[in-house]
Amino acid sequence: MSIETALGALQSLLGDGLTLSKSERDLHGGSESYFPDTPPDAVAFPRNTDEVAALLRICNEQDCPVIGWGAGSSLEGHALALRGGVVVDFRHMNKVLEIRPEDMSVTVQPGLTREELNIALRDTGLFFPVDPGANASLGGMAATRASGTTTVRYGTMRDNVMALEAVLADGRVIRTGSRARKSAAGYDLTGLMVGSEGTLGLITELTLRLQGQPEAISAAVCAFDDIAGAVAAVIDTIQMGLPMARIEFLDAASVRAVNAYAGMTLPETPHLLLEFHGSPEGVKEQAALFGEVIADHGGKGFEWATRTEDRTALWTMRHNAYYAVLASRPGARGVVTDICVPISRLAEAVEAVSADIAESGLPGPILGHVGDGNFHAILLIDPDSPADLETAKALSHRMVERALDLGGTATGEHGVGMGKLDYMAREHGAGWDVMGQLKAALDPNNILNPGKVVPQG
Amino acid sequence: MSIETALGALQSLLGDGLTLSKSERDLHGGSESYFPDTPPDAVAFPRNTDEVAALLRICNEQDCPVIGWGAGSSLEGHALALRGGVVVDFRHMNKVLEIRPEDMSVTVQPGLTREELNIALRDTGLFFPVDPGANASLGGMAATRASGTTTVRYGTMRDNVMALEAVLADGRVIRTGSRARKSAAGYDLTGLMVGSEGTLGLITELTLRLQGQPEAISAAVCAFDDIAGAVAAVIDTIQMGLPMARIEFLDAASVRAVNAYAGMTLPETPHLLLEFHGSPEGVKEQAALFGEVIADHGGKGFEWATRTEDRTALWTMRHNAYYAVLASRPGARGVVTDICVPISRLAEAVEAVSADIAESGLPGPILGHVGDGNFHAILLIDPDSPADLETAKALSHRMVERALDLGGTATGEHGVGMGKLDYMAREHGAGWDVMGQLKAALDPNNILNPGKVVPQG
Repeated sequence: MSIETALGALQSLLGDGLTLSKSERDLHGGSESYFPDTPPDAVAFPRNTDEVAALLRICNEQDCPVIGWGAGSSLEGHALALRGGVVVDFRHMNKVLEIRPEDMSVTVQPGLTREELNIALRDTGLFFPVDPGANASLGGMAATRASGTTTVRYGTMRDNVMALEAVLADGRVIRTGSRARKSAAGYDLTGLMVGSEGTLGLITELTLRLQGQPEAISAAVCAFDDIAGAVAAVIDTIQMGLPMARIEFLDAASVRAVNAYAGMTLPETPHLLLEFHGSPEGVKEQAALFGEVIADHGGKGFEWATRTEDRTALWTMRHNAYYAVLASRPGARGVVTDICVPISRLAEAVEAVSADIAESGLPGPILGHVGDGNFHAILLIDPDSPADLETAKALSHRMVERALDLGGTATGEHGVGMGKLDYMAREHGAGWDVMGQLKAALDPNNILNPGKVVPQG
Repeated sequence: MSIETALGALQSLLGDGLTLSKSERDLHGGSESYFPDTPPDAVAFPRNTDEVAALLRICNEQDCPVIGWGAGSSLEGHALALRGGVVVDFRHMNKVLEIRPEDMSVTVQPGLTREELNIALRDTGLFFPVDPGANASLGGMAATRASGTTTVRYGTMRDNVMALEAVLADGRVIRTGSRARKSAAGYDLTGLMVGSEGTLGLITELTLRLQGQPEAISAAVCAFDDIAGAVAAVIDTIQMGLPMARIEFLDAASVRAVNAYAGMTLPETPHLLLEFHGSPEGVKEQAALFGEVIADHGGKGFEWATRTEDRTALWTMRHNAYYAVLASRPGARGVVTDICVPISRLAEAVEAVSADIAESGLPGPILGHVGDGNFHAILLIDPDSPADLETAKALSHRMVERALDLGGTATGEHGVGMGKLDYMAREHGAGWDVMGQLKAALDPNNILNPGKVVPQG
């Protein structure tokens, strides 16, 4: 039993669909995280589920690790081939298989990206709402339980994956869920696979819930004197049940970076960026109600943009905030953090993290999906400074400890990967052992993305 | 190892909290289904999680089956003690532990019922939306992944349970999820426990998502000439993205029964019952849009009721539809069915089931949560007629086969229990074996609700 034997069998199976080239291995051995690159022994490009199943049967027999790969955009080193083996890149399995407008659902292959899907849906009046920022693959988004700016309204991948086809470690192909909108028929295997980060199976097909394109969309920015005012406005808005489609926070440092990057002139104080979806009347009413909320919390410069180009400019700015922040310290590398707390503890969490960062001396703008209690800091380090990296790691550690102290979670949306593994024991207690038992039951040889998510023996 | 030994140890542990009385055993050995009563050997009434954990440790050592019990309102015989053992009745664990209005969440014990919870929430401006009709316990609702009339807007228990405390077969206590609104931290154990019907653990605490009480509520009834018109109106409404809070279907036979039972005078044709939640303006706008939709499908007599007493009358009528239908055949017993199909196949499914029932000669009004593609027939049988029961079973069987043929599920909300076990192999294929593997990993002695949900060895 060896990786080498597996690679021989895989070459017979996949032909051109397997490569041992150094450049491909290097490309599939890196990540957006600060963890060292760890190239796999080979990269496979399967064309269909049968090939994935045959690949897994071979690798399971040979104890050869198998790691799924979508767009490579995950932030916590999810796909690093810690023990070598084969990275399975789903780029050739990127078809839209069936759009069912009357059911508001679509079936796709895992390599399709969310932007490609929305282009394919353009003429249907429907869209797929989950938006993590990056143009991630839908298989990867399901595997990491991605969410993002629109989750406050439309939910995470947990809420938007209706059914899956997945291949287990031993090559068995399972179909979970159905095309019905709900079911009470047994264990929720779809939910178990979503967020399992490739440790329980490889996703080979997804059925996703779609949303109707709203008749009217309105977006806005709004400035606050301080973090507390902005966060209090978010809390009030949620409690009123206002159905915001997006409600994003940028701290003063993020706004400063965005101004410099995009040539904008926003006041350099904390901001909320918002979007409402609905009927023309509904959107107008929501805007008026939100205007009343922010007036109570010192919100200023509240202006609505209903024109598509103005809205696009606003959300392009938000999506580019990461690059804007990076550009604010030339040559810097960003260490991106991710925590999520109960809404009631959000102001406390943001202010404490803000103070920690200020004290550290590292630049670290804070921004995030505050309607979910989820936010990030982009800690800017000199890539040649081990001291900077240590400071960033210590800040990130402190952030997670604060999130857990406040009844929150170590990761709202980026996932466990390499970066959050050390916190799982504290966050889940005995539940983490249970995750290990489930993993052992379905992947007894531990070939699927070994070294991730569950306790390491 | 024996049940008898377990009972001795449990008596020492629980004192008064364990009874072997015939009356309690009989009370906890029945169900709302047509399956024969199967009383347990004893009934336990634990007062806290520690007692539940100690009970499970004893029963696991002694191979004594343990079956959870909430309000006893499940419809598929979920809690029948097929192999004897102990039924654990959570009636003493029925506290509201903490209401957190600012987080829009609440933590409760499993024996609390949904109506009790909503009474406790009355002054907070919040409510718990999941409404299966019966005043079920919240632990039971989570265990069966309950849903109901408001699911089209607010989701099922899958969407509304944020976190759980559960005791596993071996007595380990786990806490799943957190108070944050989302998380990407490892496997979704909350989702795995929800809908596991007491076969993976006993739920001892639940943290539930709450909703703001809508500023305005409006309800309506609307008559159609035929099933196709009513269902087409539902599909159009969903595709427009109208955020109905409820959209319920009653066929002509159900309307006839309701008229007779409640002294009403609705035209005896298929009806939709609706409710919209929102701002006063929003509700008015939704009503106008819905009026346009039904005009295209022959909807008639569309009238809105915004007064609380009128709305209450309407939903009392809906909630009493089961009793109304029962009363329409004096002395009859109702065999209640439950399937869910993709919305696009709903008209086809309802019409085919309707024709099957008409052909059988049994009275069987159809009604359901059509916004989810979920509907029921209440098959009225003479309790003394084995032939009637066989006809009802054959109809129910045919319904499930139709649902699966149409890409749906054997149960939208009632769960597997005894009634749907035989369909799991077809619905889930290899996935059903996976469910069995998960069960074996967490409950190797098969003491938790044995004989249910998973393949039986």
